[in-house]
Amino acid sequence: MTNKFRITEEPINPNDCIEKVVRNEAGAVNTFIGTVREFTRGKRTLFLEYQSYIPMAEKKLRQIGDEIQERWGDTDTVIVHRIGRLELTDIAVVIAVSTPHRADAFEASRYAIERIKEIVPIWKKEHWEDGTKWIGDQKEKKSYEKKIPLEEEMCDG
Amino acid sequence: MTNKFRITEEPINPNDCIEKVVRNEAGAVNTFIGTVREFTRGKRTLFLEYQSYIPMAEKKLRQIGDEIQERWGDTDTVIVHRIGRLELTDIAVVIAVSTPHRADAFEASRYAIERIKEIVPIWKKEHWEDGTKWIGDQKEKKSYEKKIPLEEEMCDG
Repeated sequence: MTNKFRITEEPINPNDCIEKVVRNEAGAVNTFIGTVREFTRGKRTLFLEYQSYIPMAEKKLRQIGDEIQERWGDTDTVIVHRIGRLELTDIAVVIAVSTPHRADAFEASRYAIERIKEIVPIWKKEHWEDGTKWIGDQKEKKSYEKKIPLEEEMCDG
Repeated sequence: MTNKFRITEEPINPNDCIEKVVRNEAGAVNTFIGTVREFTRGKRTLFLEYQSYIPMAEKKLRQIGDEIQERWGDTDTVIVHRIGRLELTDIAVVIAVSTPHRADAFEASRYAIERIKEIVPIWKKEHWEDGTKWIGDQKEKKSYEKKIPLEEEMCDG
């Protein structure tokens, strides 16, 4: 199971994620892919940098898979998030969820991306045309400005 | 644009569909994949057969892409549906929609699969353990029993 919930510095191949969740019992796979977008509120992004506290991030991804299984039942989930420097259109995250019927696959996949942004310790540094900024949490509600938090400052709650 | 909305007898590669919609302006791609499930209401499927009136089906797929663009704006959509004999876990359909933000990608992808089942002339023959049946429309609300409709019987409305 371990490699179903992964942080990686390598490019992510969506087919690999999809193949891991396809199974006889499932009639539906929903895949969400987050890519690096050029413009955010009128500012041009040149590239992004992601950093993560990997063991905790992978643990949190696995937790999201467990939450999906509890809520929807009969699910299979893969979540892979890339870190390091990402260029425009590079894939930052792939979620793939298989379920017997399609409504559940859509809902569970949507749930996964919202939860990633809530609980997974991954920090994004925006490199804009006119400067850089660490985006504190992925919901972008706070900013750590020049630095990301130290490992000791994070709570595994 | 033509090959973004395709009926094919060959296996569908999700990565090919995804690559076609990834672009600088998009931060999100939602992909829906329909696969051949073993059990439906307790009946075991051995394999499926899909047939289609291809020119009309591709025209309708393209129409769905246009509807998505009208409703959500700034979208890019690929829809590929396979026909012929499909085994368990084979991919029958892949939808990929890219949008700047994720909520739209999820909604548009969901819209696409519902519309496919409403308006695209593709017929499914279930080969169960204990017999076969043509599923008339994809919403499975009527059955053509032993045959699919003649081309002349279909209206392009």
